[in-house]
Amino acid sequence: MERKVFGVDLGGTTVKMGVFTEEGELLDKWEIPTRKEDNGSNILPDIASSIKGKMNERNISINDVAGIGISVPGPVDEDGVIHKCVNLGWGVFNIAEEMKKHIDLPVFAGNDANAAALGEVWRGGGKGCKDVVVVTLGTGVGGGVIVNGKVLTGYIGAGGEIGHIHLFDDETEKCGCGNTGCLEQYASATGIARLAKRRLEKDDMPSSIRGVAQMNAKVVFDAVKAGDALAQEVAEEFGEILGKGLSIVADVTNPEVFVIGGGVSKAGRVVIDYIEKYYKKYVFHASRGTRFELATLGNDAGIYGSAKLVLDGVSKH
Amino acid sequence: MERKVFGVDLGGTTVKMGVFTEEGELLDKWEIPTRKEDNGSNILPDIASSIKGKMNERNISINDVAGIGISVPGPVDEDGVIHKCVNLGWGVFNIAEEMKKHIDLPVFAGNDANAAALGEVWRGGGKGCKDVVVVTLGTGVGGGVIVNGKVLTGYIGAGGEIGHIHLFDDETEKCGCGNTGCLEQYASATGIARLAKRRLEKDDMPSSIRGVAQMNAKVVFDAVKAGDALAQEVAEEFGEILGKGLSIVADVTNPEVFVIGGGVSKAGRVVIDYIEKYYKKYVFHASRGTRFELATLGNDAGIYGSAKLVLDGVSKH
Repeated sequence: MERKVFGVDLGGTTVKMGVFTEEGELLDKWEIPTRKEDNGSNILPDIASSIKGKMNERNISINDVAGIGISVPGPVDEDGVIHKCVNLGWGVFNIAEEMKKHIDLPVFAGNDANAAALGEVWRGGGKGCKDVVVVTLGTGVGGGVIVNGKVLTGYIGAGGEIGHIHLFDDETEKCGCGNTGCLEQYASATGIARLAKRRLEKDDMPSSIRGVAQMNAKVVFDAVKAGDALAQEVAEEFGEILGKGLSIVADVTNPEVFVIGGGVSKAGRVVIDYIEKYYKKYVFHASRGTRFELATLGNDAGIYGSAKLVLDGVSKH
Repeated sequence: MERKVFGVDLGGTTVKMGVFTEEGELLDKWEIPTRKEDNGSNILPDIASSIKGKMNERNISINDVAGIGISVPGPVDEDGVIHKCVNLGWGVFNIAEEMKKHIDLPVFAGNDANAAALGEVWRGGGKGCKDVVVVTLGTGVGGGVIVNGKVLTGYIGAGGEIGHIHLFDDETEKCGCGNTGCLEQYASATGIARLAKRRLEKDDMPSSIRGVAQMNAKVVFDAVKAGDALAQEVAEEFGEILGKGLSIVADVTNPEVFVIGGGVSKAGRVVIDYIEKYYKKYVFHASRGTRFELATLGNDAGIYGSAKLVLDGVSKH
């Protein structure tokens, strides 16, 4: 019997879980709540118990499981040591050793953003590629840089922080990180809403998005598709800023493909068209052929990538 | 007897060669001219012959040699295939297979800029570190990004092209790459001379570098050290631009250390002081502790790195 792999995406509110074949076929997925009380001491027992229940339900014996991959919202070092997950109330400990107390399976841990990137490379928009940059356009701008099939974590786990690339000296509002002029301030969902508001305030040009109660990236891109000229100007500005930022990322890392995910990417291929146009303008000629793809796994990217942590870890030994 | 490793840095004018211990001690180094006639068909036989001569001279038998590492001025893929070295008259071929015809030793090939970076990480300014960015400030700005001890080559070998990061939209002069506003236009030796000329033309501020016949980075930094206020303004501008550029590189790759080499770095620690000040201003907080070191191997970095290609290649098998 082919072995199974569990992928666990541990978030601040829910724990997403999936059971996969070693080829990356998702057989089943489910969620449990994240119990953060008592410094998160119930979280790992809850996960172990839920996995045991699923194994029972699907008649999977312990010998049929290659391992459990867990991604967490915080830095994890190469030995699987968690360095504080503030959202979960966790301190510093080795997650694999801790899980062993509850379930006798190999455990591999990683950071959630990196795991999501790994998932997209394994079975999503970057499938089959070894050099990929996954860009997540959500509340912020997240990045996962995959080099030769492995996540570039960097010296202290701060690799891929592409949302905080400094682009504008003349920005006056502060980014969440404390700096000003970060890519994230323009290219995230929040950033696009900000660009739209600034454009609307500039003059009286008529637009379907003028007076919208809740400005957001969806409103802007819906208007873009409907032919609204002002919204299209905002999209051009977004595309130029992000295209320029990603050109720099490519000058450093030369990926085969950029995978664009997160809430903003739900607007579809039009988002990529705006980015790619400016990317090609600014990038070093050797990287001009880098492709752009939409992420395909949505919220499941994390469980896919967590499962892949097991396969990568197992193959190392 | 401990085995020896040959490192060959093949340039357009001379071939630099060295013989090393496996620990990276340079036992001997020498040069031969690069004979480019007949589409460079003499180059590999010349190298083989020179290595045989050195083995004879130092009583090294073929069994005492781990291999030969060769770095070339052009892209080399993972299989050791050279994809045109215009400077040498070379087309596309497998350098290891070709060398085998002349000398019966394992051969490992790589790109020259990447090999120089690997050399600095092995035995130079980045010694002991696994995540390093080597920045070469010469005629241009070159980069070598080392991730977990390996060179980040990227999908088609265009990783580490940090000289062509786009920084300025309002630049009017073209960079050698065809774009405008590249980091290299301000932070290379040539770029610093350009910044100095622009500053001198701006007003009549007195300066020791005014009227200098041959403006270059050495002239500027000598004046900086002598307390020339205008030269110090130029150094600040250089430091801000390069510090900003490297902050972006660190946001993407999070190195432990930047190693600064090339002709400009000969001015010493003062160069780093100007860069680091602005680096800390612009970088994402998690990478604020990245260290800056001067390169230490000078023109020998290439032979060191070429020798290291052998050890990395050998250790893979």
